[in-house]
Amino acid sequence: MADEKKLPTRAQDFSGWYNELVVRAELADYAPVRGCMVIRPNGYGIWERMQRQLDDMFKETGHQNAYFPLLIPQSFLQKEAQHVEGFAPETAVVTHGGGKELDEPLVIRPTSETIIYSMFAKWVQSYRDLPLLINQWANVVRWEMRTRLFLRTLEFLWQEGHTAHATEAEAEDETRRMLGVYRDFMEGWMAMPVVTGRKSESEKFAGALRTYSCEAMMQDNKALQAGTSHNLGQNFARAFDLTFQTEAGELDFAWNTSWGVSTRMVGGLVMTHGDDNGLVTPPLLAPIEVVIVPIYRTDEDRERVIAAAMKIKESLGAWERRSPARLRIHVDAREGIKPGAKYYEWELRGIPLRMEIGPRDLDAGQAVLVRRDTREKRPYPLDTIGESIHELLSAIQDNLLETARARREANSVRGDVTYERFREIMDGDGAFVYAGWCGSGECEAKIKEETKATIRCLPDDEFRSAVAPTSCLRCGEKSVAEALWAKAY
Amino acid sequence: MADEKKLPTRAQDFSGWYNELVVRAELADYAPVRGCMVIRPNGYGIWERMQRQLDDMFKETGHQNAYFPLLIPQSFLQKEAQHVEGFAPETAVVTHGGGKELDEPLVIRPTSETIIYSMFAKWVQSYRDLPLLINQWANVVRWEMRTRLFLRTLEFLWQEGHTAHATEAEAEDETRRMLGVYRDFMEGWMAMPVVTGRKSESEKFAGALRTYSCEAMMQDNKALQAGTSHNLGQNFARAFDLTFQTEAGELDFAWNTSWGVSTRMVGGLVMTHGDDNGLVTPPLLAPIEVVIVPIYRTDEDRERVIAAAMKIKESLGAWERRSPARLRIHVDAREGIKPGAKYYEWELRGIPLRMEIGPRDLDAGQAVLVRRDTREKRPYPLDTIGESIHELLSAIQDNLLETARARREANSVRGDVTYERFREIMDGDGAFVYAGWCGSGECEAKIKEETKATIRCLPDDEFRSAVAPTSCLRCGEKSVAEALWAKAY
Repeated sequence: MADEKKLPTRAQDFSGWYNELVVRAELADYAPVRGCMVIRPNGYGIWERMQRQLDDMFKETGHQNAYFPLLIPQSFLQKEAQHVEGFAPETAVVTHGGGKELDEPLVIRPTSETIIYSMFAKWVQSYRDLPLLINQWANVVRWEMRTRLFLRTLEFLWQEGHTAHATEAEAEDETRRMLGVYRDFMEGWMAMPVVTGRKSESEKFAGALRTYSCEAMMQDNKALQAGTSHNLGQNFARAFDLTFQTEAGELDFAWNTSWGVSTRMVGGLVMTHGDDNGLVTPPLLAPIEVVIVPIYRTDEDRERVIAAAMKIKESLGAWERRSPARLRIHVDAREGIKPGAKYYEWELRGIPLRMEIGPRDLDAGQAVLVRRDTREKRPYPLDTIGESIHELLSAIQDNLLETARARREANSVRGDVTYERFREIMDGDGAFVYAGWCGSGECEAKIKEETKATIRCLPDDEFRSAVAPTSCLRCGEKSVAEALWAKAY
Repeated sequence: MADEKKLPTRAQDFSGWYNELVVRAELADYAPVRGCMVIRPNGYGIWERMQRQLDDMFKETGHQNAYFPLLIPQSFLQKEAQHVEGFAPETAVVTHGGGKELDEPLVIRPTSETIIYSMFAKWVQSYRDLPLLINQWANVVRWEMRTRLFLRTLEFLWQEGHTAHATEAEAEDETRRMLGVYRDFMEGWMAMPVVTGRKSESEKFAGALRTYSCEAMMQDNKALQAGTSHNLGQNFARAFDLTFQTEAGELDFAWNTSWGVSTRMVGGLVMTHGDDNGLVTPPLLAPIEVVIVPIYRTDEDRERVIAAAMKIKESLGAWERRSPARLRIHVDAREGIKPGAKYYEWELRGIPLRMEIGPRDLDAGQAVLVRRDTREKRPYPLDTIGESIHELLSAIQDNLLETARARREANSVRGDVTYERFREIMDGDGAFVYAGWCGSGECEAKIKEETKATIRCLPDDEFRSAVAPTSCLRCGEKSVAEALWAKAY
């Protein structure tokens, strides 16, 4: 049960606010092993809804689920030169099994390109076997030094899509398509607006030709990389001999893509919508959409009010909202806890709508609905309460996205900005800064060193400034690409 | 693509039949690491449907999902004496992380009692926090020596339920309730009849007070333990100091249960229903319920027939059968493959219904439906084909369960059986033998040594013989319990 103790405010201590919120709303807890977390039912319920929706979207775009092993021979990682450089330092290594030392150590997958493309090589013979469109839901382990619940943990849950195609163009299309699926999900379901674009060479995935990402602005103006999609070219196909016979009868290497999102998104949701009272969950992802808190003083009233609450739940609810007409409703009938304490707890947990119902409400044929986002409170007639709830949930979902987008735009800087001004911004409140870049890794590295800001992406067309910047933010040379700069998680 | 090559028959070589079927129907494949498997889309699609249904059933009985870490400190395993004895020899051990040797080695979870009850101890203070009803979907690793796809692999996927209760009676109720859920699922969805009962002391879970199981008969008359439910008593609560304040204000240890089923069930499904032509999938778990194979010779016919097939799919189908009226339909429009080869492939994969449709069928306003279970084939009018399909699918589901149950009963032996006869049975075709048992571990061990048969369970009331056996199968002493004996996977 949550303590009725105030969270730190976001303005005071954003980082402390986040950590306390996650623990006190019982989204997650610290595990006995350093850097690992336990995802508690309140947090897992959100993840589960994210999974179901994304899984539907993957299937609608022709992908099938499969499952590949957790343990990968150490030698596999070494077959792709950049890949091993990127991941080997972060691996957890199994050296003993069944009481004996292993001949070859096994690593716990930090990502599954190597094991998956080694299997694809067995399965793919001809162009008829392509495209091969696979996804897996799995846990991965990366031995991170600085960890934070959901945002960066030694073990995390994710999905990783892996595909093989006959042509480079098809692979590029797939890479972009899945980035689009992620964006649709993040905006349509998480109500979290994102900027999409391509990563610079220094920030791309170890082993990829090109990496694209979705970047979201958190309430401290830092960026969260919320999903990535990689065009892997033929790099892994060459490393694992993934060849196929073309329609013309020749032998060629397949073209691969991989793309992933993780439990990190739960952290992104918290930092996008949460307020000083706790979590605010977008209705589409809320495990509970409406909590009914019955109000009474006498035993007689209690019976009457709880019966009415259960009746509402029964007539409108279902534990799983398979049918769009059914709602996920919970009646908080706990005894010995005052309504105020219940309100506090459900606000902390971010339930989108609260229904308060007492004997006088029943006499008047009404119930009070309180929105979590605006905290607006007003009575609604009971005989049309289902419609009212549906309308309010949809209004909350829309409002969260609009609010987040307006906040991002208010904290974005475009147009000419001197490097001095840029440093002031990054030393101060931070922002998404769209600026010119000469394209050199040297300028990029110096800016990172001097300001901790990085190129989040080279934004896609629709996010670029109306007037393209002409010179590089740092060196003043001719700009070759507009870059989105920000500090990041 | 499957080779058009005959499987070994079940009668010739049951074990070879199973292994080849699993690989050739592309349910699973061997991974590069010994004893690990890749679950391919055809197999994962079945597992996924099992998961969704079980998950619904767990939620309907009040459980919530959560996720606990993969890595467990080695010392945790040692806190419960029987538990460490049972599991320590099978663990995979991580000794290095991030390039350094760890201070304390970590084991990859072989099961999660230790880590979960250590967390419950943090979360539970009072009887108000109970019952705590948690489930997790996860991968586990057990370093097995002899492995077989789905049936016994180093890594497997499963769910493990873990609950904490205020009283012993509640924990026992929960243990039995979840055994009942497993049975309902196995019979109602997998069409796999099971015998439920209690395990003997020597076969119970390491650390449990009592273990119950569901035992299914495979087509070689061996038993498959398909699910277990454990009453853990206060063993783990004592080991992890999981205490709570009772309503009377005293401090007591909580009572725990755990229960699990795994990807092993997919192997059970294959060995229950498969035939010499391949897999037979119960419709409720089939990723595809109906495959439409268009038949044509000319281009003109092709266009017409495929258009009709797509129209049927569109009017009746959905990739996910959320609404009971929608069907999971696939149109096999691949070119360059003859209908016969397609039939062969879809039979191997066990799709419950095949629809054959050609120009003459269209002229006659009909399509041919072929049942996978009975291979019965007849035309049905197109204008009521949806109803016909629903009826046939439901008939197939029922028939599979009835057939499996009749086979089990025909291969069960009850009543007086001499030990000599018992040995003949176990040396020969095998059977489920219900016989008397004196209750001694010594007789149990000797029978196992001499015949390889084990006590699968002490069956629940409804499975016991009308006339209770009076003497022990081996020693002839007074029987204290009727036992179900069989060789097992």
